Amino acid sequence: MKLKTLSAFALTSVMALTGAAAWAEDTIKIGVSYPTPTHAWAAGMNWHAEQAEKRLEALYPDIDLVLINSPDPSAQASALEDLVSVHQIDALVVLPFESEPLTDPVLNVKKSGALITVVDRGLSQPGIEDIYVAGNNPELGRVSAVYMKGRLKDGDNIVVLRGIPTIIDNERFDAFMAEIEGSGINVLDHKHANWNRDDGFEVMQDFLSRFPDIDAVWAQDDDIAIGVVAALKQAGRDGDGMFVVGGAGMKETIKGIMEGNELVPVDVLYPPSMIATAMDVTVAAFKSNGPVAGRYILGATLITQENAASFYFPDSPF
Amino acid sequence: MKLKTLSAFALTSVMALTGAAAWAEDTIKIGVSYPTPTHAWAAGMNWHAEQAEKRLEALYPDIDLVLINSPDPSAQASALEDLVSVHQIDALVVLPFESEPLTDPVLNVKKSGALITVVDRGLSQPGIEDIYVAGNNPELGRVSAVYMKGRLKDGDNIVVLRGIPTIIDNERFDAFMAEIEGSGINVLDHKHANWNRDDGFEVMQDFLSRFPDIDAVWAQDDDIAIGVVAALKQAGRDGDGMFVVGGAGMKETIKGIMEGNELVPVDVLYPPSMIATAMDVTVAAFKSNGPVAGRYILGATLITQENAASFYFPDSPF
Repeated sequence: MKLKTLSAFALTSVMALTGAAAWAEDTIKIGVSYPTPTHAWAAGMNWHAEQAEKRLEALYPDIDLVLINSPDPSAQASALEDLVSVHQIDALVVLPFESEPLTDPVLNVKKSGALITVVDRGLSQPGIEDIYVAGNNPELGRVSAVYMKGRLKDGDNIVVLRGIPTIIDNERFDAFMAEIEGSGINVLDHKHANWNRDDGFEVMQDFLSRFPDIDAVWAQDDDIAIGVVAALKQAGRDGDGMFVVGGAGMKETIKGIMEGNELVPVDVLYPPSMIATAMDVTVAAFKSNGPVAGRYILGATLITQENAASFYFPDSPF
Repeated sequence: MKLKTLSAFALTSVMALTGAAAWAEDTIKIGVSYPTPTHAWAAGMNWHAEQAEKRLEALYPDIDLVLINSPDPSAQASALEDLVSVHQIDALVVLPFESEPLTDPVLNVKKSGALITVVDRGLSQPGIEDIYVAGNNPELGRVSAVYMKGRLKDGDNIVVLRGIPTIIDNERFDAFMAEIEGSGINVLDHKHANWNRDDGFEVMQDFLSRFPDIDAVWAQDDDIAIGVVAALKQAGRDGDGMFVVGGAGMKETIKGIMEGNELVPVDVLYPPSMIATAMDVTVAAFKSNGPVAGRYILGATLITQENAASFYFPDSPF
């Protein structure tokens, strides 16, 4: 037994030393930079980034993920500088606050030799990032319209609430309208509700006062949808098979779908958890024999009562 | 010591039992189906699939990858049936032999409830796969042309060898020609060499007999490039800064780039290791908090002497 004990001890010591040496020399540092969470979607992103950090560091002892959130574009630019000079990162996962002011700072990180993964919002200059991970805005519009067409018939009426006037909103709206065209469904009106509950409530009140017969609402976004539902209930017009389609994958919305909510029966995915996907593929650059550089455009999955459970994260703030 | 010995034994037993129970109930089975390797690229794919299998099963004890290669489309269709009925897979990674005859068989796997990842070649019907992983054919052509433009000047002459007449070849060729347009580089002629060494040799012999002044060759593919290089050397026209650009990422080509081969100084990636990327993202569907459904289009990375080492797999057959 003595020999065995000694052997076991020796083995442990060697492993400890090897481990320490490996850490000092071979730790792979990956910076993850994104805006400070000031609204629910961003809070969800922060939560999912932290979950992915725990999961990936537990899986790979030599991976060190450094998460930093920044309150504005210039703070994010400084954070990127620190990730290079202080942390000497091997790779960066970045969700830029805005495209223009972050393009040069990210280019500087690339010049340091780090692998670059950009999430959700592109930079102003093409070709900087090695990997691009994003949701699919046209597909979000198209999938929403396909669901409408499956539920409604020729001559039925819908109203559309749009987001903040941006390329993202245009892509969603144009794809929705293209898919609806020729279906016989009437789009009574569309107005911007700015991805916001209060604006959703106000715009929907206006629609309700002007249109006595509305069969469904495309709210495009879960926050807008909450305002729409409040307006429908206040006006007592939430019956007769009326339904609302939002978008994103808010946990309260998904819980409702799981429970069979008829007013908001589905959702279309545009999830803050895409930051975790970006972290996964960035880690794979150091761990997999498969290539990772490229464009990974996530699907706008229709969330129904059947599949809702796999998109429900009860502990996430979103 | 007696107590400790007993404890250690007891612990081992419990772990063994837990392990067995977990295996029986919770093992995630993922089928990986692809054509029997009959040429080098496919042999490389088979090798990379086996590497990914070992790596992922070591990382996740509850993941079981079942690799099956099939000699023809109908054998692949049968293999897919077995993966459902015998192996009861939770997910499928499939590189279809041909699009048309495999579309219904893959649809049947989807109907069993399995997650579907399609690699490289699309199915005939859209919307069956949850995840699509593929190379970027237009980008392969564009990146090759950008390199040509960087090396050549107004008035220089090139010849182009094309692949088998297919959509893939058209996408590569059209993007190459669009990028070359307006550069002042003359494309003397283009002919199909069918991704094949012998055809590459013959087509290049013809070009050499007809054109006394050729500055560079776009061979599009590493196998064609081998035939082109043989023809150039036989004719003694491999000097004066002449260079050849192939494509795919064959290990002999990459080794040459690492060693500073001036005749074939770069390569453009279209790697068989993409099967490993597809296996990674499919496993992530069961392990990550990030979404995975979507389209992952890998970049056509330019391989130069600087980055060649990270694309060199000396033990791969390709």
